[in-house]
Amino acid sequence: MPVQPCSAAPIVREPLSGQAAAELAGVFKALSDPIRLRLLSAIAARAGQEACVCELSEGIDLTQPTISHHLKVLREAGLLTSERRASWVYYRVVPEALQRLSQVLLVESGATGVLA
Amino acid sequence: MPVQPCSAAPIVREPLSGQAAAELAGVFKALSDPIRLRLLSAIAARAGQEACVCELSEGIDLTQPTISHHLKVLREAGLLTSERRASWVYYRVVPEALQRLSQVLLVESGATGVLA
Repeated sequence: MPVQPCSAAPIVREPLSGQAAAELAGVFKALSDPIRLRLLSAIAARAGQEACVCELSEGIDLTQPTISHHLKVLREAGLLTSERRASWVYYRVVPEALQRLSQVLLVESGATGVLA
Repeated sequence: MPVQPCSAAPIVREPLSGQAAAELAGVFKALSDPIRLRLLSAIAARAGQEACVCELSEGIDLTQPTISHHLKVLREAGLLTSERRASWVYYRVVPEALQRLSQVLLVESGATGVLA
């Protein structure tokens, strides 16, 4: 289930609530695996921030089912969306999700408030 | 062992290397626990971004050894430093570590390059 909290106040601005911490921890857990980080980055760095599993399996030495499993975890964390076209599933980055995490970790309070 | 990669290029700019992904995954793993996120935020939101265990145990319903364990994980990930003064250990946020993570997750390439 995608996690979409309403606010994204930086953690340095005020103490996180229990609920916000639980939601955020789930997203960071999805990012706590090197393979998932590489897959997310490989998709994000492509034109259109989109790729199919067939394209991703080229650069990473894993079977396609394993790659699909990791992509599913990223999708369930709200970091990717997926769409089936013909025989392939295409994955696309959710830029707002990355931006929200970036915002949450922001240190300089002068630059905040964009997503809050 | 604190993780201090030389660069912090956003993952949307170019695909992460295996080494960078492994280092980053370790830091995200430290952030993948709600209690650790709340402790980090509680310290970060204080004046001076510093707190002793005695102050942190007030707001969170956990024993002091458990809190100390979570703080140790955050310290080993390079997100906190610690210093003993008299009978208490004080923990301080490493703003550069948060800033680096925020940078890595940045989506707008126009705002990058500060830490790279």
